[in-house]
Amino acid sequence: MLVTYIGYAAAVFTTTSFIPQVYKVWKTRKTKGLSLPMYLIYGTGVFFWTVYGFLLKDIAILAANSVTLVLVLPILFAEIKDRRK
Amino acid sequence: MLVTYIGYAAAVFTTTSFIPQVYKVWKTRKTKGLSLPMYLIYGTGVFFWTVYGFLLKDIAILAANSVTLVLVLPILFAEIKDRRK
Repeated sequence: MLVTYIGYAAAVFTTTSFIPQVYKVWKTRKTKGLSLPMYLIYGTGVFFWTVYGFLLKDIAILAANSVTLVLVLPILFAEIKDRRK
Repeated sequence: MLVTYIGYAAAVFTTTSFIPQVYKVWKTRKTKGLSLPMYLIYGTGVFFWTVYGFLLKDIAILAANSVTLVLVLPILFAEIKDRRK
């Protein structure tokens, strides 16, 4: 069904979008310009989505958000490290 | 049901998280450090989520992603403007 594929495409896009940001932070070793509150709030939200997917046994939500969490956490840690300098 | 509230909390967090980033871009007039591919891919994904919510008549998905799109687009436009300088 078309709508299912649109959902899959949406999940793949919003999940993989963080890869270029992780790469940029890793390459430049800089997080200037990135908002720390954004990644704190976003990370919390993605954590809740992961719990939601786990409780509902919804593999798509669980998988997409676990991957997003793995991508968002290094950005968040880099930001916290940068602010502490 | 607890799981429903976790879902609502997740949606509120991942949606509102972009507010501090929009504010930071607006205040500093700078997008250095932000990944352009990230916001291009993320914006596309959120657009697909909005279409998905519309087609399924799922008000929660439709509302959350419409708001996210409204927050992500100004960041994306600011990045494109910055790169063209």
